[in-house]
Amino acid sequence: MDYNKTEINTVKRGANKAAYDKKSVHSILDASEICHIAFNVNGKAFVQPINFGRENETIYIHGSLQNRMTSALIEAKEVCLSVMLLDSMKLTRSAFHHSVNYRSVMVFGIVKELKTDSDKLKGLKSIINHFVPGRWENCRKPNEKELKATRVLEIKIETASAKIADVPPTDNTEDYSLDYWAGSIPIKTVCQYPIPDEKTDKSTQIPEHILKFYEKKKNGF
Amino acid sequence: MDYNKTEINTVKRGANKAAYDKKSVHSILDASEICHIAFNVNGKAFVQPINFGRENETIYIHGSLQNRMTSALIEAKEVCLSVMLLDSMKLTRSAFHHSVNYRSVMVFGIVKELKTDSDKLKGLKSIINHFVPGRWENCRKPNEKELKATRVLEIKIETASAKIADVPPTDNTEDYSLDYWAGSIPIKTVCQYPIPDEKTDKSTQIPEHILKFYEKKKNGF
Repeated sequence: MDYNKTEINTVKRGANKAAYDKKSVHSILDASEICHIAFNVNGKAFVQPINFGRENETIYIHGSLQNRMTSALIEAKEVCLSVMLLDSMKLTRSAFHHSVNYRSVMVFGIVKELKTDSDKLKGLKSIINHFVPGRWENCRKPNEKELKATRVLEIKIETASAKIADVPPTDNTEDYSLDYWAGSIPIKTVCQYPIPDEKTDKSTQIPEHILKFYEKKKNGF
Repeated sequence: MDYNKTEINTVKRGANKAAYDKKSVHSILDASEICHIAFNVNGKAFVQPINFGRENETIYIHGSLQNRMTSALIEAKEVCLSVMLLDSMKLTRSAFHHSVNYRSVMVFGIVKELKTDSDKLKGLKSIINHFVPGRWENCRKPNEKELKATRVLEIKIETASAKIADVPPTDNTEDYSLDYWAGSIPIKTVCQYPIPDEKTDKSTQIPEHILKFYEKKKNGF
């Protein structure tokens, strides 16, 4: 199933790297802890990183009340957000062809503030379970005071595109004879072994949902 | 030396994590290969990742001619960009206090398109040497045709802020008695050993600037 190709999401530069299928877009979103959100304040474009959750075609973000970014998004009723995972650096003989392998996504969505406690809890559950799958069932849920202090936004994906670069470095034919080293430097973002906090008895077993997350991410996001 | 604290760059949420000194801002910018750029197209805020370079108070980015993002920035004459490095995930007993340790920067700058070949080369040198220090002297410089096909923008930093979270997970006092595991999962983005491209003789020694970069980044950006 593909997202609509419109003026805003059609990839022009590097169109051969573009993907519009929901599976590719979802898998890149799900692999990242952080997205970057664009928003306007007095006509100026701002960008800020934030964590998020995803259920099917809905992305959830949250913030404190009166937060500048969420206020701007509620006003705009729409948002563009981006996720980027860097996989390798490609060094070529020519400066011009230096580039990176990566997985990225650009999402365009419709923003709505969630108002009821049950809707807000649904959004927060998605965010916490995106953080570490299974975590929601393994922590204390937000109480009424905490819910009141938290703004939760729903972003319905309208359209999106993925860009996936996964090819070796390439030089112009005439440059291969040049005596410069060319190749790749792989990049990995990895989890290290979980560390209990100061108040946790060191003999306490690390719960399965955390070990599972660590095992999945120890070799890369 | 500090950046001016203005309406746009003053950190409100988590003000105790904020830093306005140039040294902190520069070091976070220099540690990241990628920044996210905000720009407006027909009044809608967009965000896109891109690599960049920095010399003192100037950031450089580049793109192909007619690129949507650089066109929008040239028109706007100003930009907000963000860099984010994730250092650890903090799991607390309460859902509410889950958070991350990170180093992030928000830059506000004045945009100018570089027009002369020598200015463009200066920008591209900064970008390539930000990618891997010393790389500019170890590859073929852009020729006239490549320079013509490349747009280079200079971003003079007007003001900026850094946010650095580097503290253990914290719960409310009354939650410490709850029987949920709490702690951190450290996150690292690391380089793996450089891999020569297909046309490079496997006996070719990896040059010093690349080995130096690898040694510096193998344990984290």
